Amino acid sequence: MSPKVTEEYKEERKKEILKAAFEVFCKKGFEPTTMKDIVDASGLSRGGVYQYYSSTEEMFRDIIDRNDKVGREELSKVVGASDSVWKVIKDSVNGYREVPTTNFAIVQFEFAVISWRSDSEDRFDYILNRLKFWRKNLVDLINEGVKRGEFHPVQKVEAIVDFMTNVFDGLILHHHLAGASEIDVDGQVDALLFYLKNVLQVKED
Amino acid sequence: MSPKVTEEYKEERKKEILKAAFEVFCKKGFEPTTMKDIVDASGLSRGGVYQYYSSTEEMFRDIIDRNDKVGREELSKVVGASDSVWKVIKDSVNGYREVPTTNFAIVQFEFAVISWRSDSEDRFDYILNRLKFWRKNLVDLINEGVKRGEFHPVQKVEAIVDFMTNVFDGLILHHHLAGASEIDVDGQVDALLFYLKNVLQVKED
Repeated sequence: MSPKVTEEYKEERKKEILKAAFEVFCKKGFEPTTMKDIVDASGLSRGGVYQYYSSTEEMFRDIIDRNDKVGREELSKVVGASDSVWKVIKDSVNGYREVPTTNFAIVQFEFAVISWRSDSEDRFDYILNRLKFWRKNLVDLINEGVKRGEFHPVQKVEAIVDFMTNVFDGLILHHHLAGASEIDVDGQVDALLFYLKNVLQVKED
Repeated sequence: MSPKVTEEYKEERKKEILKAAFEVFCKKGFEPTTMKDIVDASGLSRGGVYQYYSSTEEMFRDIIDRNDKVGREELSKVVGASDSVWKVIKDSVNGYREVPTTNFAIVQFEFAVISWRSDSEDRFDYILNRLKFWRKNLVDLINEGVKRGEFHPVQKVEAIVDFMTNVFDGLILHHHLAGASEIDVDGQVDALLFYLKNVLQVKED
């Protein structure tokens, strides 16, 4: 077997395992999910799964990393193709009006919220590195708007970005709590756009 | 024994149990804490604890409810004594710059984030009612500022309040993740104040 075929084969197995893992995480949450749950859901043998992943934490991170990679590439493409960075930001913020179609976002939230009591010593580092990764992407995005003359930020760009991330997380949580539409998610999206328009000193809407 | 003494006695026992429960929740988190953990920590007998609380969920809610009651009373007092509602809001927002002295806030967060997969069918209702309680208090606070001529909100007051709550939650999470001060918590507090000043159209600072 050539190395190329082997890599492709490995990648296909990983995708298969992660597909099963994603479904179990969405159904059971992060902490209650066991390796056995995922082995059973994958239809593969125990050894066939452990060959690629030795813990649910590894699988969970690989799902996140792959999503992040896709998200990062999509962002670059959209910014490159758009004549307005403000429009890109607005579209992305407006996306949070929609109820998420899976539980994965709230399960990611669980993963972060319980990390202080996790056995995994480096989960903090992992989460911080991920925050830094998205912070850098969003800082670059805003700076691109500055370069194009669209934005004139009156706060530190890093603070603006951390604030956006903070609000995005809250919106995910509120969507999950607002089964009875008791929380004004749309109003919060409007509030974030109001803040951004003011803090970036966007001239046109 | 007169009924009055009995009530006082009960209240003292409850306080004793909740003090132990609070410490265990802060140390272990919500989900991993068992009734046995709390019985052991309280120094009371199993029966002595179960007489007052039949689950960790009941204890957890009672701690929150008692905190909320105190918080509500303090807010009324502060607003009554202050000649500026804006100052009350600023002080309260600025309080989020401090690192929380206990884990209780992040554990409360866990309690909310995992509620979608909880056995407790009415936890959603409980959380929503609590959100509504604080929403009403904060809406009243902003309306007090409107009445006094300090604020001229350009967004629905409910949306402003939900947004504040969203950001407060995120700040608690970020404090817990920002062990290495990698996240700009101060910048986010500034961002919230910037938003509030603009959305409430506060004239003086």
